[in-house]
Amino acid sequence: MNQTIQELYERKSVRAYEERPIEPEKKEMIIRAAIQAPSAGNMTLYSIIDVTDQKLKDTLAVTCDNQPFIAKAPMVLVFCADYQKWYDLFLQHEEEVRKPGMGDFMLASCDALIAAQNAVVAASALGIGSCYIGDIMERYETHRELFHLPKYVVPTAMVVFGYPTKQQQEREKPVRLPEAAVVSENTYRQMEAEEYASVLSDRQGKTEEEFDRWLRAFCKRKWNSDFSAEMSRSVGVMMKEWAE
Amino acid sequence: MNQTIQELYERKSVRAYEERPIEPEKKEMIIRAAIQAPSAGNMTLYSIIDVTDQKLKDTLAVTCDNQPFIAKAPMVLVFCADYQKWYDLFLQHEEEVRKPGMGDFMLASCDALIAAQNAVVAASALGIGSCYIGDIMERYETHRELFHLPKYVVPTAMVVFGYPTKQQQEREKPVRLPEAAVVSENTYRQMEAEEYASVLSDRQGKTEEEFDRWLRAFCKRKWNSDFSAEMSRSVGVMMKEWAE
Repeated sequence: MNQTIQELYERKSVRAYEERPIEPEKKEMIIRAAIQAPSAGNMTLYSIIDVTDQKLKDTLAVTCDNQPFIAKAPMVLVFCADYQKWYDLFLQHEEEVRKPGMGDFMLASCDALIAAQNAVVAASALGIGSCYIGDIMERYETHRELFHLPKYVVPTAMVVFGYPTKQQQEREKPVRLPEAAVVSENTYRQMEAEEYASVLSDRQGKTEEEFDRWLRAFCKRKWNSDFSAEMSRSVGVMMKEWAE
Repeated sequence: MNQTIQELYERKSVRAYEERPIEPEKKEMIIRAAIQAPSAGNMTLYSIIDVTDQKLKDTLAVTCDNQPFIAKAPMVLVFCADYQKWYDLFLQHEEEVRKPGMGDFMLASCDALIAAQNAVVAASALGIGSCYIGDIMERYETHRELFHLPKYVVPTAMVVFGYPTKQQQEREKPVRLPEAAVVSENTYRQMEAEEYASVLSDRQGKTEEEFDRWLRAFCKRKWNSDFSAEMSRSVGVMMKEWAE
């Protein structure tokens, strides 16, 4: 089996790290792999903030839905969608420049994520674990101030990195959905809730009652939860400020 | 040098393909690599539409900003942010379920992009070229109808794949920005337009006048352009319908 493909299959999130730093040359390779990622019009519509300050990490461990392991990660990268640089440049060279809109917001967010995933894949190839922290999209006002973000720069993804502990190395990768539940041909195939439940029940709960209990707890934790409501509030503000 | 890292460094977009199909087992590996990507809460908040119908490809070649090479790509995958499946399931098992918001829109979009980039990296490892088509975010109403997308499914990224022609193989990879223009430590570093211009002028235009001419043409093509305005209009509609 192709080495790279194998790594993509096996890569899983790592949330507990050995207490040793990531070597500077490996960090450099991870960041370089990110920057070499494809980007819309080769415009690099993102910026990366390399969080090395322990106080900042401690803060992020709180502001990103209280996840203490963030503070212990030897390497923390924040990927921001960034149209500020180009917009400023356009304004300086052109008289009539349209204002940034939601398409630009999304295109820059796409660029940020594509770069982030290259960093994740590169780390994995070097034996370094990583975990996405979507919660960086919460508490926009706080994070904007923390990182001094101008109007057209928003945090889209955070990835924390570190060498996996033995326990994490041995942890089984959570099962992914079967292809038939993700891929359809030529048209979107809408799944009824019952069908999707039956796909998921392969991994969660054996009886209908068990599945229902699991799903309700999951919904409480992932949807009807404070962090989830906060993410939508925060992203709403982000978008509003970008567009106005 | 590590094989995977090397591939990440060298991968460049490919827009001209040999006239031969991608072998089913390779296609399978690419899709499997996508599905094995990290996803928020292991929820797989995306769906993939595998476009095999030539008529559909022909349409996309027009609706995605008139790019004929899309129609010639042997493999076309559309990555959609998808909260429909989970939301339907929540509704069926819980009485009080909050409505999807902009945070959910972004979290699902992130998932879609992360999976897409795994597909791109896997393809690259198999000698298969690829190109992102951000224009799939344009003409939302048309694409929604084309793929029969329900309310909480939106197209986020399209990637087209194929074996690169000899010319494409030999084409030089466009230069990326230097690390110092992308990465900053602990805080966002705002670059003045002049500084950013000097970074870019390394690759575009030697004299100030040449750079100014290049930048104005670039702004016209990438910013003050029809596709760009259309993308912001279309994504605006997408978001509005999702949130209402």
